[in-house]
Amino acid sequence: MDKQFAVGIDVGGTTTKFGIVNRNGEIVYQDRISSISHDIVEDFIADLYEKLYPKIQEAGGPDNFVGIGMGAPNGNFYSGTIEYAPNLRWKGIIPIAKLMSQKFGMHTKLTNDANAAAMGEMMFGCAKDMKHFITITLGTGVGSGIVIDGKIVLGHDGFAGELGHTIIRPGGRLHKSTLMHGSLEAYASATGVRETAIELLTTYPEEESLLREHSINDLTSQTVYECAIRGDAIANKIFEFTGQILGESLANFIMFSSPEAIVLFGGLTKAGNLLLRPTRQHMEANLLPIYQNKVKLLFSQLKEADAAILGASALVW
Amino acid sequence: MDKQFAVGIDVGGTTTKFGIVNRNGEIVYQDRISSISHDIVEDFIADLYEKLYPKIQEAGGPDNFVGIGMGAPNGNFYSGTIEYAPNLRWKGIIPIAKLMSQKFGMHTKLTNDANAAAMGEMMFGCAKDMKHFITITLGTGVGSGIVIDGKIVLGHDGFAGELGHTIIRPGGRLHKSTLMHGSLEAYASATGVRETAIELLTTYPEEESLLREHSINDLTSQTVYECAIRGDAIANKIFEFTGQILGESLANFIMFSSPEAIVLFGGLTKAGNLLLRPTRQHMEANLLPIYQNKVKLLFSQLKEADAAILGASALVW
Repeated sequence: MDKQFAVGIDVGGTTTKFGIVNRNGEIVYQDRISSISHDIVEDFIADLYEKLYPKIQEAGGPDNFVGIGMGAPNGNFYSGTIEYAPNLRWKGIIPIAKLMSQKFGMHTKLTNDANAAAMGEMMFGCAKDMKHFITITLGTGVGSGIVIDGKIVLGHDGFAGELGHTIIRPGGRLHKSTLMHGSLEAYASATGVRETAIELLTTYPEEESLLREHSINDLTSQTVYECAIRGDAIANKIFEFTGQILGESLANFIMFSSPEAIVLFGGLTKAGNLLLRPTRQHMEANLLPIYQNKVKLLFSQLKEADAAILGASALVW
Repeated sequence: MDKQFAVGIDVGGTTTKFGIVNRNGEIVYQDRISSISHDIVEDFIADLYEKLYPKIQEAGGPDNFVGIGMGAPNGNFYSGTIEYAPNLRWKGIIPIAKLMSQKFGMHTKLTNDANAAAMGEMMFGCAKDMKHFITITLGTGVGSGIVIDGKIVLGHDGFAGELGHTIIRPGGRLHKSTLMHGSLEAYASATGVRETAIELLTTYPEEESLLREHSINDLTSQTVYECAIRGDAIANKIFEFTGQILGESLANFIMFSSPEAIVLFGGLTKAGNLLLRPTRQHMEANLLPIYQNKVKLLFSQLKEADAAILGASALVW
């Protein structure tokens, strides 16, 4: 009898989402655990096992599963290892696919989290009929999955597509984990939006803003969004600036691979047009004429957790 | 019997070089005509035919040829047309592949000139056994050819790979034809080196320099090179700065496609280590650890005119 299920796991900077997926692409069970409360990866896997394995048993046990697909920051498809992920707590080279296989007794495949999202988009999302597109995840960090000729770009060693770490403001804002200056992720992530907020509030101490009702610890991209839709000038300026940086970066990416679309994804996209309008404006302004008004700039229509789990599970189907 | 030859044609802004290439990558005949002395493209093709066709006949006629490969600025592989090339005399959309096929009675394929150079590198140059590399041509402008999984990246519409126009200094130096600010080409081309020289000489009017023995009109990347190897401080600073900009850009490209090598090509590479050392230094300094000390930075070993002809011919092999 054909194996009926696959496990899809999305390891994020803060939360790990996982689920059991059937052959029709339906998530029949899903849950989440923290990604930041385990000093060593073995404890993380033990925690995952405790929640997930009983559900695997209920669904017929490992024999009824094609395997486990995982997406993780700096996840390498070729080697099955997470290598030096700046946004994860476990440092160095983590042989997570092997550790998972041993613990669960199931074949495990790994890829980078953003590549998993791109696969989800290609299989079930708005890039369904596209052969050339780029997915940008705007979450705690900035991830990317690049599809050329219908295939995820892995590169020579499996690490292609770290567009969040490309430099868009040389000598600019320090990224606290990579220690690089001026990378896209330092600006166009939830963390970056928070930093831009703090910068603007301290640069213009006289200017009134609803944001000042919040303590610094309380300032998140969500608060900025809420103040922006209430018409707050500084909050709007924050999205304007974030969109500018993102748009300039997207223009550079387009001149690399000339995609049909760029699909935006992740928490920051909740800002909708507050982010989309300046992003599109600065993207178009930085393109050569041969690329202008051709590339679709889309928000993913998939539920974020679903797309990541489905995309990860697609690795083992 | 297998067809023994291919024609390779490189349409440049001033000169068109063409040759007959055998299966070993040897150019058995080559010549050139002007690209600027024909009002209409049909006259250009007639001129080419007059010189080239007798040689095709000598080599066994069209039946002994796999076809004609052409590289040209803004050449589109999908459509076989040259589209709005600013440096060519024939304006609009030129269906050159179709016109060539009709005139010569031979299958003709077209691509952009930088992609042709990358193909030459892959078939006959230092990227012979590589599946993932990027070729950067540092000439009057900055061209690029990107190879992923052994194939030239063309993108959704055939215009992928305009890395010279990616922005590396937002708000920076104005590019006089594109009117963009801070693109790689504005700095890391022969034109850019000349501009950097003028900028530095006027910024430090007190500082002695061999470069001041030349008139502004006389200043070229070649003069800068000659002064630099004689130990001139400003001339060395110019290559230092050019290498910094190029290195930062290469780091961004590497984080996109994770290539095995970057192959540099064109007039500026004559500067050798004066350019290579700072380029490598700033490339490595701007890479995430997962990419560091992995990517080969190479100078092409092919003669420039040969590479273009060989690369173009590779389109039809």
